[in-house]
Amino acid sequence: MKLGSLKSALSKDGELCVVSRDLKTAVKATHIAPNLREALESWKDKEASLQKLYTDLNEGKAANAFPVKESDFHSALPRTWLFADGSAFIYHIKLVRMARKAALPETLETVPLMYQGECGQFLAPTEDIPQRDFAHGTDFEGEVGVVTDFVPMGVTPDEALKYIRLFVLINDVSLRGLIPEELAGGFGFFQSKPASALSPFAVTADELGEAYKGGRVHLPLNVTYNGQFFGKANAGAMHFHFGQLIAHAAKTRNLAAGTVIGSGTVSNDDHASGSSCLAEKRMIEQIENGAIKTPFMKAGDTIEMQMSDAQGQSIFGKISQKVKAV
Amino acid sequence: MKLGSLKSALSKDGELCVVSRDLKTAVKATHIAPNLREALESWKDKEASLQKLYTDLNEGKAANAFPVKESDFHSALPRTWLFADGSAFIYHIKLVRMARKAALPETLETVPLMYQGECGQFLAPTEDIPQRDFAHGTDFEGEVGVVTDFVPMGVTPDEALKYIRLFVLINDVSLRGLIPEELAGGFGFFQSKPASALSPFAVTADELGEAYKGGRVHLPLNVTYNGQFFGKANAGAMHFHFGQLIAHAAKTRNLAAGTVIGSGTVSNDDHASGSSCLAEKRMIEQIENGAIKTPFMKAGDTIEMQMSDAQGQSIFGKISQKVKAV
Repeated sequence: MKLGSLKSALSKDGELCVVSRDLKTAVKATHIAPNLREALESWKDKEASLQKLYTDLNEGKAANAFPVKESDFHSALPRTWLFADGSAFIYHIKLVRMARKAALPETLETVPLMYQGECGQFLAPTEDIPQRDFAHGTDFEGEVGVVTDFVPMGVTPDEALKYIRLFVLINDVSLRGLIPEELAGGFGFFQSKPASALSPFAVTADELGEAYKGGRVHLPLNVTYNGQFFGKANAGAMHFHFGQLIAHAAKTRNLAAGTVIGSGTVSNDDHASGSSCLAEKRMIEQIENGAIKTPFMKAGDTIEMQMSDAQGQSIFGKISQKVKAV
Repeated sequence: MKLGSLKSALSKDGELCVVSRDLKTAVKATHIAPNLREALESWKDKEASLQKLYTDLNEGKAANAFPVKESDFHSALPRTWLFADGSAFIYHIKLVRMARKAALPETLETVPLMYQGECGQFLAPTEDIPQRDFAHGTDFEGEVGVVTDFVPMGVTPDEALKYIRLFVLINDVSLRGLIPEELAGGFGFFQSKPASALSPFAVTADELGEAYKGGRVHLPLNVTYNGQFFGKANAGAMHFHFGQLIAHAAKTRNLAAGTVIGSGTVSNDDHASGSSCLAEKRMIEQIENGAIKTPFMKAGDTIEMQMSDAQGQSIFGKISQKVKAV
């Protein structure tokens, strides 16, 4: 099934909606749970009712269904308790570290890199990306994410896969100009990772069909920058699968229901697939042409991300944001 | 005023209570706001009613007041949207970096160190600290924290002080054995900073009287380890004040109402004041005696933290935790 959160003046969590497979119609599900955050806290009790409503909606039998206007929707999960963002695409790590002349960690292929990101107020998927200072080096990062149920501390990677409830796309906004100093301090990302946006819709694994296997989503992430093709890297190239990322996050803590685990920037070493962030494109330009041509984002630049199924149907709706000077 | 959150089977946010100045009686305030997290989201509308109830309670005029049993209370704010933990005591940074033979950042005295910690499920102040592996090097860290209202991005340090709504104590549980590898990876703390606990009660600035000045709480943090004196370092020794820490956190993002900003481990360079974490004591042993004597925590070890006013009255109630093998 597909779920979304209508923007609401009354609640920062939005209002829970079930959305049709073709993303054309939706129906409020607030009688089942007021919002997705709370639905995830009692998923076992809510799932069947939500699934029934989804079936009715797809069959045109849901009362009070309404046409979807994506800009009325917030991030699928407007706020939650933990965003643990991994970095599971090794090629991305290699390129961005090359860009900032940083060494590769010795445990590159054995221990996932992960930081804790802002999740108390995701940007809406069509909300402007605020930019205080162009020198901050504003960049986008296209990612796939999973939303988990409560996960007990110490879970194994294989067991961890069983706690995945939903999939989303993420635009993990990154401020490249602030990263070197933050990482040099030793405490990792903070100012360099401001609020991100999720896709308007979150979907269960069955919506991905055959594309979801081995704990990875084997589909290209379509990225369009300022209206031009930018990337179609396949998200199936994750070195660590989502079960490994969840297990890493849960090594020393339980994960609250509603935890978002990010894949890190989707990246393929085939350059014809393009990129899912500017930092990679800039580094590839440096390697191939000896000079960086592409600047970081400036006010007015637009970024779109989406992923389609084998039939060309958009799965998660579209992240479509513009940088705005503030 | 003083506020607390009764543990509740119905809500992970607990039930909002007003607590008397002497911490002997409390009264539910759920008719004003169901929980502290939500009260903070509309503080302007709730503050006067809570203050009125506090006055009534202290005067013995509040209906349905009940005697306080601290173990019935969760962390003052059981869960929230952001825990931005600073490291404002320079002497602490010097000692722990000496311990792990890490260089001091060049910006030690000009830019606060800060990471984002687990806040979706604080431990209760009397809850066991779970320990999966003794080799993780379990340590406590005694801190003072502030809870903010919504803070706009780009706030100045002086302006930032105006957004402080409450003060708490924090036991920031740290797994020293996991820190070196995590910091070497470049992404900072994650597994090494599991769930922390807050004090049972959160208080407004007026409860601190003259002790709160210059954005710092000028009172000793009393730390007792396994029933013995461990530390009484004065929290007024912060190099960066809370306004500077809030402004650092808000440089590239708005802060959600309910954000907790931690001071970092309270630390004085006067060794007679003791320490607020084991890592410091171990390093001081190394410096003074040439060898570390104190091990990290093991199952059964107990840690207590509290802070008293000039009259000896406990301000925040007591954090009192025991390590438990899981």
